[in-house]
Amino acid sequence: MALATRLEHLGTETAFAVSGAAADWAARGNRVYPFHLGDMNLPTPGNIVDAMNKAIADGKTGYCPAPGIPALREALADDIGRSRGMDLDAANIVVQSGGKPVITKFIQTLMNAGDGVLYPNPGYPIYESQVDYYGGRPLPYRYHETADGFGIDLDQVRELAASGARAIIYNDLQNPLGCESTAEERRAIAELAIEHDLWVLSDEAYFEMRYSGESTSIASLPGMAERTVILYTFSKKFAMTGWRLGCAVAPTPVAEMIAKLNTNDESCTTHFIQEAGVEALRDPSGAGPLLTELERRRNAAITAIGKIPGVTCAKPEATFYLFPNVTEAMSMTGHDDVGDFATAALHQTGVSFCTRRHFGREQPGETEQYIRFAYSGIDVDDISEGLGRLGEWIGAEA
Amino acid sequence: MALATRLEHLGTETAFAVSGAAADWAARGNRVYPFHLGDMNLPTPGNIVDAMNKAIADGKTGYCPAPGIPALREALADDIGRSRGMDLDAANIVVQSGGKPVITKFIQTLMNAGDGVLYPNPGYPIYESQVDYYGGRPLPYRYHETADGFGIDLDQVRELAASGARAIIYNDLQNPLGCESTAEERRAIAELAIEHDLWVLSDEAYFEMRYSGESTSIASLPGMAERTVILYTFSKKFAMTGWRLGCAVAPTPVAEMIAKLNTNDESCTTHFIQEAGVEALRDPSGAGPLLTELERRRNAAITAIGKIPGVTCAKPEATFYLFPNVTEAMSMTGHDDVGDFATAALHQTGVSFCTRRHFGREQPGETEQYIRFAYSGIDVDDISEGLGRLGEWIGAEA
Repeated sequence: MALATRLEHLGTETAFAVSGAAADWAARGNRVYPFHLGDMNLPTPGNIVDAMNKAIADGKTGYCPAPGIPALREALADDIGRSRGMDLDAANIVVQSGGKPVITKFIQTLMNAGDGVLYPNPGYPIYESQVDYYGGRPLPYRYHETADGFGIDLDQVRELAASGARAIIYNDLQNPLGCESTAEERRAIAELAIEHDLWVLSDEAYFEMRYSGESTSIASLPGMAERTVILYTFSKKFAMTGWRLGCAVAPTPVAEMIAKLNTNDESCTTHFIQEAGVEALRDPSGAGPLLTELERRRNAAITAIGKIPGVTCAKPEATFYLFPNVTEAMSMTGHDDVGDFATAALHQTGVSFCTRRHFGREQPGETEQYIRFAYSGIDVDDISEGLGRLGEWIGAEA
Repeated sequence: MALATRLEHLGTETAFAVSGAAADWAARGNRVYPFHLGDMNLPTPGNIVDAMNKAIADGKTGYCPAPGIPALREALADDIGRSRGMDLDAANIVVQSGGKPVITKFIQTLMNAGDGVLYPNPGYPIYESQVDYYGGRPLPYRYHETADGFGIDLDQVRELAASGARAIIYNDLQNPLGCESTAEERRAIAELAIEHDLWVLSDEAYFEMRYSGESTSIASLPGMAERTVILYTFSKKFAMTGWRLGCAVAPTPVAEMIAKLNTNDESCTTHFIQEAGVEALRDPSGAGPLLTELERRRNAAITAIGKIPGVTCAKPEATFYLFPNVTEAMSMTGHDDVGDFATAALHQTGVSFCTRRHFGREQPGETEQYIRFAYSGIDVDDISEGLGRLGEWIGAEA
């Protein structure tokens, strides 16, 4: 008995294989430094846990409305509207079990089979998976390395947008690159979206995860609110990755359809967790210490990477990812395959990380080699120790 | 800017409109007796809440594996295997955010566009919605009223199964009918599934919700395990509807694909809620008092319905639904439209309920009129009082 043929078009996150390899290596008695995880080893602020328990004691254990409880939708409209400078109300908010469901629901709601959809590459692999799965035409756009990070290849975006595309996925404050758009780059993307009448998914999972400066949502630029769906999540800001709480922010007709998908797919997001979300927005003071800790980790990682031979890396002010260029280090250690390089690094030093390959198929003309370090799930001392070992190994092989 | 055309095929649960009408009526200062809700107004057992908090304190707030944490998958394999008499292991279990996600994931995994899928009508409306949405051929099968409940029209199932169908959705212990199959009926469905090589979704949301006798899973019949996906949920047994915890039980290759959908759709189910689920299965003693209370309510409802003129109703030993025949009561109150009858009942008596229409399109040849009472969200005294008023109104109009 065969499975359905549509599954041939379903992708996945191959990064989970890295977790598996790291776990295997650790199980064989080896020390592992987990830089592969985009997860957080930090506790959720206590006021959020307390609010959840109060909600349970108050009987908030039954079903609730598919688009979310009114109190959370209102709090999110207020908070997101204020932080983005947008005019939002509860009707624009559809609560989700995390940020990720917004990807499939954006695609299902706004892309027809055959439509072209632009998305970042390297980028979060579920974008491509969902475009493919629902029969879209995948249009990956590339980044180039700049003096202080990465920038979008706007010429390529322009060309792809003109090829009859229907939507663009934009991940300012980017995973895995750790970069963010300049104001000019963001404006250029917005102008192309308007010119070609594109729907936009603005993945803002890392909007609040920054150490200096301020984030800007592409949805707040002129003419953009009516064509943009924002992916919002509590996961990073409040160390709530495993709680599964987020929302879609969308023009009302789109929000209504996303809510209808909620009714079909999962009924509602956990009732009392939504009450916890109301408290997180009411008193977000627990988020500050989390960011302070992440900034310490970023600094430790950047310092340590600076000492690794053959590795260069920008110092991003946002996200908790670094995307070092390891072209020279690979040559020094005699590797021309970045996957082999990662395996060798794990086995020689215990340092576990994803590579460029976990974030979409290579595009033509790529010559440089990159890996991704996530520093959200590893403490400062281990960052310094692990990356120190990595540097020693590369230096010794050179 | 248009939405995607696939949304034209997306159905919903129209029962939510009943909740809305009841809430409006209550907001205007009227007493409402909520028989429309398939929700529960009973607290989740305390040991489950405590286990969740312990998990949070232990740092179980990060991501976890897409198919679920190993401890819960093992506990579910053990518990479901034992209660169904099946040989299951963790690889057969894919944890979900409730039972409902199993419906869409069954359809996505096993039905191609154009395939026929049989499903109960009256039945849970999301079956039809998902078959339609993914381009299937909807094949509703009917029930007939029997001396002590309802039975499946096996002749119709036989005919539809022979029409090139690929799957059948079977909801033994049925919502909204409150009925369950005889051993003969269940065996006949299984034989047809085998004969026509059908995949089977066995919706077992109410498997444990019974007051006497024992449930049997169609998956435990010979030749069925390899073609059946079981929808399992914690929602009813442990009064956890709003927690969103359930699982799919499936042959391993199907389970692996459902897990891949998890990775795409929501990453994972809330981590610490899965730990709470482990405790629920370890010490399910809190489920007993819930069933005892529901049985009291069933008895109160059956007694009260017995006194309503023009209404007849079987006494089911399972689920928390009743599906009374109101053909005569409608005639006595001058209604020939069951929706108008429900509105009049709400406005005259405050009794709020769904009708047959909320559970799929009428099939040709239906002559009798039915409504559904859910008694899971209303206390015994209110059951007696509300149904008493309903009887008085009907009697007065007659």
